[in-house]
Amino acid sequence: MTPLILVTNDDGVHSPGIIALFKAMKEIGDAYIVAPDRERSAVGHALTLHRPLKVEELRENVFSVNGTPTDCVALAIHKILPKRPDLVASGINRGANLGDDITYSGTVSAAIEGTILSVPSFAISLVGDKPFHYETAASFAVEIGRYILDKSLPYDTLLNVNVPNAQKRDMINGIKITRQGKRVYDSAIQEIYSPWGDKHYWIGGGKPYWEHGEDMDIQAVLDNYVSVTPIHLDLTNYEALEYLKKIWKQS
Amino acid sequence: MTPLILVTNDDGVHSPGIIALFKAMKEIGDAYIVAPDRERSAVGHALTLHRPLKVEELRENVFSVNGTPTDCVALAIHKILPKRPDLVASGINRGANLGDDITYSGTVSAAIEGTILSVPSFAISLVGDKPFHYETAASFAVEIGRYILDKSLPYDTLLNVNVPNAQKRDMINGIKITRQGKRVYDSAIQEIYSPWGDKHYWIGGGKPYWEHGEDMDIQAVLDNYVSVTPIHLDLTNYEALEYLKKIWKQS
Repeated sequence: MTPLILVTNDDGVHSPGIIALFKAMKEIGDAYIVAPDRERSAVGHALTLHRPLKVEELRENVFSVNGTPTDCVALAIHKILPKRPDLVASGINRGANLGDDITYSGTVSAAIEGTILSVPSFAISLVGDKPFHYETAASFAVEIGRYILDKSLPYDTLLNVNVPNAQKRDMINGIKITRQGKRVYDSAIQEIYSPWGDKHYWIGGGKPYWEHGEDMDIQAVLDNYVSVTPIHLDLTNYEALEYLKKIWKQS
Repeated sequence: MTPLILVTNDDGVHSPGIIALFKAMKEIGDAYIVAPDRERSAVGHALTLHRPLKVEELRENVFSVNGTPTDCVALAIHKILPKRPDLVASGINRGANLGDDITYSGTVSAAIEGTILSVPSFAISLVGDKPFHYETAASFAVEIGRYILDKSLPYDTLLNVNVPNAQKRDMINGIKITRQGKRVYDSAIQEIYSPWGDKHYWIGGGKPYWEHGEDMDIQAVLDNYVSVTPIHLDLTNYEALEYLKKIWKQS
């Protein structure tokens, strides 16, 4: 039976990244887009609870929602798709989702929501600047999507994929399985003034500094590999749990 | 030297929960509030990048920001506080933050941002319904804040604290160190119609169903204990990493 694939993102339903991913997923299944009506970057795993959401069918198999990527996945799975999807594919994001930054990422959060709802999921992002070569990333999306449909994924685990922004696939060294890297510091907050002279702050524009290390996602893309990181939703620090149990006086 | 403590939340600067936490943190340090100007629940780890943010000093040591909890922590640490804080305390949230739900939580995300910026952090939430007994949770906040200031926390790790909504502290059995629980399913999405007859969807109102198990956060609060879960920011599934490394053909 042809697998059903949900495609979403956080750059919005009209972005070139989602169009490339949609085309790629059509090679391996019945693909549907359910995506935000406009850009919702850095929204994290936000869910819209304070207002109703509107779904619009733009064309065959393509729906837009005036909400977040997480809203899109929840609505798609529970209300929009003809049956439960076999795969959630989120992206192709315009820009990296590496290290701690994944906690801010709408792209990765869509894959987290898929995983919470027990659908195998991956997020895919392009690392680099304009011009973006979505076709290169799309060809890896086909490979990874096919792998997941074939072998599934470990319990409670999604794949976070980052692809170097190379013009052609054969300019990339291959795929590396990695661990989540660590961003050390990025303090960039601009101070700006309104037309009325009030000070405001604008977050962004900093250069992240990364811890480097073997197996890290950031290192893999620097070495011109596709980074594939298995991410799980159990955030418990089990070492700390054992440690704290021993020393906390159970009051 | 008196420690400096940043107090924030996602229910907004005027909520009774943050006032109770502020008062509690003043018992153990120089406390400052930097919090959203209004409720920002279920915003996840959202960072506002598309517009400037305005900070208002409401009264001594109390600031409001027209942004998310994550914005508040970043601005406080980099721009507002007189020096780097020794502790970030986020809450007291009106309602539980247990299991997978922490990925949606603005309250927990504030503590995640503190941890990313290398400040020991905890999030504290009241489990139950109105009327909320913030003083009970506040007394545990003092105990936990003091513990963290004294002993610090493991690398990259915060504490997610959930307190049963008991009228008095002695009605609670004590503190349990727990692991993150697992919410199984909550499909509640209402279908409603606009005044013009358009169908809309409204997410929410469902009854979560929980996996139960030893050491789980949800079980501890059901047993009338304060649940303290050590959460870390490295989401890598290391078992899956080893497994995938073995089987993935490095193309």
